Amino acid sequence: MTNRHLIDLSSMSQAELSELLNLAGEIRRVPGRFAETCHGKIMATLFYEPSTRTQMSFQAAMLRLGGRIIGFDDPNSSSVAKGESLKDTVRVVSGYSDILVMRHPKAGAAKAASLYSRVPVVNAGDGGHLHPTQTLTDLVTLNEETGRLTDLCIGCCGDLKNGRTVHSLIKQMSRYPGNSFVLISTPQLGIPSYLKDYMDARGVQYTELPTLEEAMPLLDVLYMTRIQRERFSSAQEYEQQKGVYVLDQRKLKKGKKSLRVLHPLPRVDEITVEVDDDPRAIYFEQTEYGMYARMALILTMLEGSERRLEPCPKSTHDHRCQNPNCITGQEAYLPRLFSGGGDMLTCDFCDERMLVE
Amino acid sequence: MTNRHLIDLSSMSQAELSELLNLAGEIRRVPGRFAETCHGKIMATLFYEPSTRTQMSFQAAMLRLGGRIIGFDDPNSSSVAKGESLKDTVRVVSGYSDILVMRHPKAGAAKAASLYSRVPVVNAGDGGHLHPTQTLTDLVTLNEETGRLTDLCIGCCGDLKNGRTVHSLIKQMSRYPGNSFVLISTPQLGIPSYLKDYMDARGVQYTELPTLEEAMPLLDVLYMTRIQRERFSSAQEYEQQKGVYVLDQRKLKKGKKSLRVLHPLPRVDEITVEVDDDPRAIYFEQTEYGMYARMALILTMLEGSERRLEPCPKSTHDHRCQNPNCITGQEAYLPRLFSGGGDMLTCDFCDERMLVE
Amino acid sequence: MTNRHLIDLSSMSQAELSELLNLAGEIRRVPGRFAETCHGKIMATLFYEPSTRTQMSFQAAMLRLGGRIIGFDDPNSSSVAKGESLKDTVRVVSGYSDILVMRHPKAGAAKAASLYSRVPVVNAGDGGHLHPTQTLTDLVTLNEETGRLTDLCIGCCGDLKNGRTVHSLIKQMSRYPGNSFVLISTPQLGIPSYLKDYMDARGVQYTELPTLEEAMPLLDVLYMTRIQRERFSSAQEYEQQKGVYVLDQRKLKKGKKSLRVLHPLPRVDEITVEVDDDPRAIYFEQTEYGMYARMALILTMLEGSERRLEPCPKSTHDHRCQNPNCITGQEAYLPRLFSGGGDMLTCDFCDERMLVE
Repeated sequence: MTNRHLIDLSSMSQAELSELLNLAGEIRRVPGRFAETCHGKIMATLFYEPSTRTQMSFQAAMLRLGGRIIGFDDPNSSSVAKGESLKDTVRVVSGYSDILVMRHPKAGAAKAASLYSRVPVVNAGDGGHLHPTQTLTDLVTLNEETGRLTDLCIGCCGDLKNGRTVHSLIKQMSRYPGNSFVLISTPQLGIPSYLKDYMDARGVQYTELPTLEEAMPLLDVLYMTRIQRERFSSAQEYEQQKGVYVLDQRKLKKGKKSLRVLHPLPRVDEITVEVDDDPRAIYFEQTEYGMYARMALILTMLEGSERRLEPCPKSTHDHRCQNPNCITGQEAYLPRLFSGGGDMLTCDFCDERMLVE
Repeated sequence: MTNRHLIDLSSMSQAELSELLNLAGEIRRVPGRFAETCHGKIMATLFYEPSTRTQMSFQAAMLRLGGRIIGFDDPNSSSVAKGESLKDTVRVVSGYSDILVMRHPKAGAAKAASLYSRVPVVNAGDGGHLHPTQTLTDLVTLNEETGRLTDLCIGCCGDLKNGRTVHSLIKQMSRYPGNSFVLISTPQLGIPSYLKDYMDARGVQYTELPTLEEAMPLLDVLYMTRIQRERFSSAQEYEQQKGVYVLDQRKLKKGKKSLRVLHPLPRVDEITVEVDDDPRAIYFEQTEYGMYARMALILTMLEGSERRLEPCPKSTHDHRCQNPNCITGQEAYLPRLFSGGGDMLTCDFCDERMLVE
Repeated sequence: MTNRHLIDLSSMSQAELSELLNLAGEIRRVPGRFAETCHGKIMATLFYEPSTRTQMSFQAAMLRLGGRIIGFDDPNSSSVAKGESLKDTVRVVSGYSDILVMRHPKAGAAKAASLYSRVPVVNAGDGGHLHPTQTLTDLVTLNEETGRLTDLCIGCCGDLKNGRTVHSLIKQMSRYPGNSFVLISTPQLGIPSYLKDYMDARGVQYTELPTLEEAMPLLDVLYMTRIQRERFSSAQEYEQQKGVYVLDQRKLKKGKKSLRVLHPLPRVDEITVEVDDDPRAIYFEQTEYGMYARMALILTMLEGSERRLEPCPKSTHDHRCQNPNCITGQEAYLPRLFSGGGDMLTCDFCDERMLVE
């Protein structure tokens, strides 16, 4: 891979991504061939907020490659929380391990870690910002289950305004020809306008529909997510609307035979339990694809990686990022890195745009 | 094994149990022969309540077989607690692993897990209901230490009303010829009448004695457990009685030379520290036998097991189990499975009986 | 090693220490040669207080030797805290594992553990008492970085009164010829008089200086530690003095080119972040040397070790240790072991001296 770290899936070329997807498929088919490929290697999982599912997926992935694991999963009960900077922890732990996997509540934390790490860093979720291995999981699932990443009509249902997994999926699938999207949500929770611009610029077709029922017959893929109760504009609207975005057996009947239903999990009640038994429901298999995706990623990142500390980039501007969820607000020593120019800058850590005077 | 899962030791035939005990003994004698037998396999430990001792025993067992481990040990600090059903967690984690070990505060939880797992499930304690690997540990200990499981006079001391380990031991040892029991407890804390019926039906001899002192000379085996202070009928009675059920050097002197003292641990003060140095005290060795017992179990369960999801059984009745500690009260999607007929049903999850109209 | 356990570095002969340092260096240079030397062995990490950094260092060390790990890191969320004695836990866990690593808030806890363990015990910190593997880390760092352990002028800066890592370093380095010390602290936080006596008795040179600035040009090694705010005699003094014991770029300029700056970590603000980029700052490398130090230690302790329970020594006196932080106050069954004679006894667990009548 061109990049030593995986912070944002967008930084990967389509050729690199394609190689990764093929490798994941090969690992799935002949896992025995890869059982010792990371023998002697250590993965450190630095989870600054608990995420048992993601952590277990990474751990299972590394163990199935023959590697080993150190790390923490709850800094509150750990001494790491006691006033050590992210930089110091990363400098130390990257001396013990061969690859770092980081989960953090602040946007840009994995990017920050990559500045000080002697080994490759994988972003396992940085606040509501990015979660590239979830999207990688979704792509492997689609590739393996439909046999292609092109010419798919993909329904996205739920809270499309705030769902980072949906945003990332739309971006990635827009890179492949022939895909179109059906966006199913309330008027208030539609996808952000920048994503519409993104699709328009690439000539990607999309429709917005108010109900899951209308959309069902059109879809090759349905990507379900949850709308949290408090996102509805009123309790009354919640009561009226809630059923509209719940997938049940009745609605599923209107779907194609070849439909595939995905969900990033955990689900709450947006898919009824009965749906689980339908062969088109593949959200549990999806988590297993996620393990193969992470195996392919770890293997690729460790291959040819050498331990080295690269010089930390210098601040590009004097400004401070104004995003309260950005890691730069918490770790004051970080360089101030922005892209763009004129009076509009984008923070390299959290990707928030900022108007400067 | 006939059964894919180990939920209740009673479901194992005596031939299967015998094979398991022999295997545990062989592993103990030539551990090197088994050091790589689970190479490449992953055990997931799903501990919905912390139990460090049990978890470490399972982990050591799996590691000594060459296998690896993922899992969690405290769902409060983990995201698993955040509204994901037991079913979903089991479906996901059984995609990452080759065997599941589950500890849960609700009765029937391991049984529930077995309905949705693609890999074998081991019950590592489900509330106050069952704890089959503790009983397996006890059987391996007796078999290795006395060289037999027959013709033993077994004293059980402590809270025999509520002690599930004692109940399970009595049931298992009643399957072997020539064993007899001496039950040592307060009148209020004697064994439940169903266990007396059980022994009567099998022609198993038993005596009830009020003091440990009287019982000592009779015993080949003494299985000690604790009476919690609050189980006594009054504070006054506690003060009068407490010493009666404490094993100390003076009482131990009245025991046979070949006596073996067991305890499921942790002990509090029901065995004095001085007793530890007596060679007849084998409760610490017992925990090591527990590791061999679990090694034999894991090895047997993984042998010839293939990943598959069996169809979930349909509800047998419309009734709901009334036991507030039953897993079915918490996980509403579970099928309602009962055995028995007429107006008396037994819940297949928690084994509670229920009168229906 | 003469001693089966590592409780206190002082109990190691200089020849043994020297062998250990050489082995650590060899492991660092050709790690591959040692990658399977602990294959099949299990290390149990019993951390009665969280110390993520120390635990990860031990874990990485054991994994890089091909071994495996069980243990706990937070007894509050674990059942071990529920009324089981240290003795019982150690008896049980030493039946599961091949080496125990213990961290505990009470002085003497590792010594106590060693009385009941069937396998070697390593002290990973017992309260403010001892932390031998930190000192071992410091020695390996000095040996590898300066190529010698003799003829070094070593500056120790910070709270020298309470800093156990500094005390231990001074003791160890006083065993080698030609070393001298520069002690940099406030008058209230100077080193204890017993350490001055110790150096005087061995003819070791030392100077006390009030500022880091004056000391800088003299030093081959600077060992930085933190002065906690509350150690200053007043808030006013804190404000006046705090900068004096902070290492920044300006002060570092006065240091030799060959200077090496060490710190046991975590640092808070006693070394400014800019210093990290100076090649003389080796505190992050120091943690990696710590991993090699622990690899050498584990390997040496496991070599030729056999599982056995040694008879527990009998109480030497009737007295109880008066130190409120001593493990003997918490675990009442421990033998009362004291050294010395006449009316001055030293507790063998916590090393506190006690006047008896």
